[in-house]
Amino acid sequence: MNNTTSSAPEACDLIIRADVVVTQDDARSVITNAGIAILDGLVVEVGEYAAIEAAFEPTSRLDLAGKMLMPGLVNGHTHLPMTLFRGYADDLPLMEWLEDHIWPVEFQLTDDMLTIGAQIGCAELIRTGCTSFLNGYFHEAVTGDTASACGLRAVLGEGFFHFPSPHFPTAEDCWSTIRNLKSRYDSNPLIRTAVTPHAAFTVAPDELVASFELATELDVPWQIHLAESTAETAICMEKYGQRPIPLLHAYGLLTDKTTLHHCVDVTDEEIALLADTKVNVVHNPGSNLKLCSGLSPVQKMLDAGVTVGLGTDGASSNNQLNMFRDMALAALIGKVRHNDASAVNAQAALDMATRGSAKCLGWPELGRIEKGYPADIIALDLSYPNLMPVYNHVSHAVYGATGMEVCMTMVGGEILYLYEDFKTLDVKALRGEALRASKWILSTAKK
Amino acid sequence: MNNTTSSAPEACDLIIRADVVVTQDDARSVITNAGIAILDGLVVEVGEYAAIEAAFEPTSRLDLAGKMLMPGLVNGHTHLPMTLFRGYADDLPLMEWLEDHIWPVEFQLTDDMLTIGAQIGCAELIRTGCTSFLNGYFHEAVTGDTASACGLRAVLGEGFFHFPSPHFPTAEDCWSTIRNLKSRYDSNPLIRTAVTPHAAFTVAPDELVASFELATELDVPWQIHLAESTAETAICMEKYGQRPIPLLHAYGLLTDKTTLHHCVDVTDEEIALLADTKVNVVHNPGSNLKLCSGLSPVQKMLDAGVTVGLGTDGASSNNQLNMFRDMALAALIGKVRHNDASAVNAQAALDMATRGSAKCLGWPELGRIEKGYPADIIALDLSYPNLMPVYNHVSHAVYGATGMEVCMTMVGGEILYLYEDFKTLDVKALRGEALRASKWILSTAKK
Repeated sequence: MNNTTSSAPEACDLIIRADVVVTQDDARSVITNAGIAILDGLVVEVGEYAAIEAAFEPTSRLDLAGKMLMPGLVNGHTHLPMTLFRGYADDLPLMEWLEDHIWPVEFQLTDDMLTIGAQIGCAELIRTGCTSFLNGYFHEAVTGDTASACGLRAVLGEGFFHFPSPHFPTAEDCWSTIRNLKSRYDSNPLIRTAVTPHAAFTVAPDELVASFELATELDVPWQIHLAESTAETAICMEKYGQRPIPLLHAYGLLTDKTTLHHCVDVTDEEIALLADTKVNVVHNPGSNLKLCSGLSPVQKMLDAGVTVGLGTDGASSNNQLNMFRDMALAALIGKVRHNDASAVNAQAALDMATRGSAKCLGWPELGRIEKGYPADIIALDLSYPNLMPVYNHVSHAVYGATGMEVCMTMVGGEILYLYEDFKTLDVKALRGEALRASKWILSTAKK
Repeated sequence: MNNTTSSAPEACDLIIRADVVVTQDDARSVITNAGIAILDGLVVEVGEYAAIEAAFEPTSRLDLAGKMLMPGLVNGHTHLPMTLFRGYADDLPLMEWLEDHIWPVEFQLTDDMLTIGAQIGCAELIRTGCTSFLNGYFHEAVTGDTASACGLRAVLGEGFFHFPSPHFPTAEDCWSTIRNLKSRYDSNPLIRTAVTPHAAFTVAPDELVASFELATELDVPWQIHLAESTAETAICMEKYGQRPIPLLHAYGLLTDKTTLHHCVDVTDEEIALLADTKVNVVHNPGSNLKLCSGLSPVQKMLDAGVTVGLGTDGASSNNQLNMFRDMALAALIGKVRHNDASAVNAQAALDMATRGSAKCLGWPELGRIEKGYPADIIALDLSYPNLMPVYNHVSHAVYGATGMEVCMTMVGGEILYLYEDFKTLDVKALRGEALRASKWILSTAKK
């Protein structure tokens, strides 16, 4: 920033003033008495407030005195409409939970129901400071349209199983759905697409390979649940004689366009392979605990140079879509997993939830507050007693905050939430819709 | 309740109306369209709202439509003024954290500083729905006076180490401080006392025995940190040739008046001993994770019939005093600890945080909403998106809530917090005080 000349200030849309900005730039700068200038949805400058005021002439100002700004969190793995199943079937292992409770109902979900689920999910993401997410579910246009209407960034993953499946009689039906999904949002700056096979044990190897070719053709990320539990490993060993990670590697599917969700049951050799292939991994601590999948060796992956993001997974296995909670979980269980109280420290957890996840979405410009990058910004209200006193803002973001201290959520310079006011959603009306959805699900489950 | 006659309604102080009450009574009743009648700080009736209205004539009413009521949570283990060290030294193992960072400063804390720490702690407890706590620290009259002024229930534990110590030249100095502490609050219904040796490896066996005799004489609980880590076990083995739990048992210190904090490194035989002796155990999942102490075998203890409560520990090793977060942590890590997704289910976690902790405080009337019991009640606002939809209120309390959904906190019929309004604390002023305290601590640490 040129703040030594007396040239006329540049025009910008907005200047935000706050006590502090945790930038998550390359140097992990933390700026006090800070200002951010925003133009056309991008940060045009971040620095000391006085310098920003001197250099820019904004159309409007937002004074967030007493607040701390940080990048909007990036949710690397979720199934947004599954908020419909929040608290519907708790305290069960992965396969029993899926086969006996979730799958029988979810295959029957209507677009009407999916919309309610996606809206609840968007409301929760906005409320807890998450500004973008990598999704995987069915009828993804519902989630895309809902996220777009709410002003959130989403990467949509139309999930599929071995063909024929309830949703897709043939592979071509699935591929054309994905092509259509991508076309639908080609001119929408908020919404992107990813190719999304469910898992290595539910999609055949030739289908995995064909789907990866589609991702390459469309130039979009390819994502899959992988190595989530020892049970999954056992199935892969029985079916294919290989553990999940070597299995995918044998088919050439571990690449820098690949995002693997979970990676709990991984060996040291497999971690080296993940690093060598520059694959992206999303850690889901809340879900891995709740479904008893295990503790992922996250610090080992980070030490090996693997890109690791953070996700909440769906609300039925967490039960929150609150990235603040999963940051804390990642840091807390990381220590016990590695028998080292310094493992997965606060900065590492915040890095996962911002820059790491951004790479997992194939959207590496997200997850930082920096000149030239998208203005996806959140504010935390430091007047909450659980954020007093302040020694270290990163520690407070990871260990001190619940997520509800978020008082402002902005995507691409647009304010989606400010002081209890949801700008793009009618959350009051949503409660009635949620009640209608829960009744529908209970009656559908009985059939 | 007699609701079949047409007799004149009884007078009461207050009727609360809410969508639902999770009572935590013996049957774990959950009442919808509920009402609670309160008189002289006690619940005089809880039931369907219409029946409550018919039977009672209140002085005032509180309509909490759209809210869920539950008992105020009971924090079984904390060091309240340690909020002063929140985020001050993270990502370190127990002994390094204590010896290099906490102890050098905390021995110098003045009553002025302790008051600020206790006030921040009380504000956080009230905000996150905790209505009573078992404390352990120095200058406990500060915490007692602060809690009493805030309207919270506290059991005060004046902590001590092997004599002579920085606070107490002799055992008699310590015992007289504890006697004075008890006398100070003899007529205060909110504040009680416990005898509180720090740990089996920092207090000599004869001092432990003498302190237990004092507790017996005063008829108050006796609490101690025990079996927190394998490092502690190793010290006990070297010093006394016994593991911590058998060591205490050999001295006759495992009784139903005894409360043990942590119990992470315990064997199956020791769990049987904990059950046989009817000792009370407080589980501290957040602290045990952050300090890398390990995962306590909580479900094994519950199965053996051990009384288990839940605590946050101090804010410097958690970093929150938020019982909702520790409920979720207890349930989530309990599954991985026992390799069973049904372990430490939502009801078990809520039981620990209410009825279990109440026994650990030696105050078993707390932790339930029931006729004749203290009116320590909190309300959760169900309009938060993370609590939509609703299938199971207990699941939402444990897995869905962050704690910030609390919109009303009441102790003994007195409202301490209602819709962002702290009735007994000036939280705005507290932020300036917190800043003053952090500066004092940083300058003291440098000396």
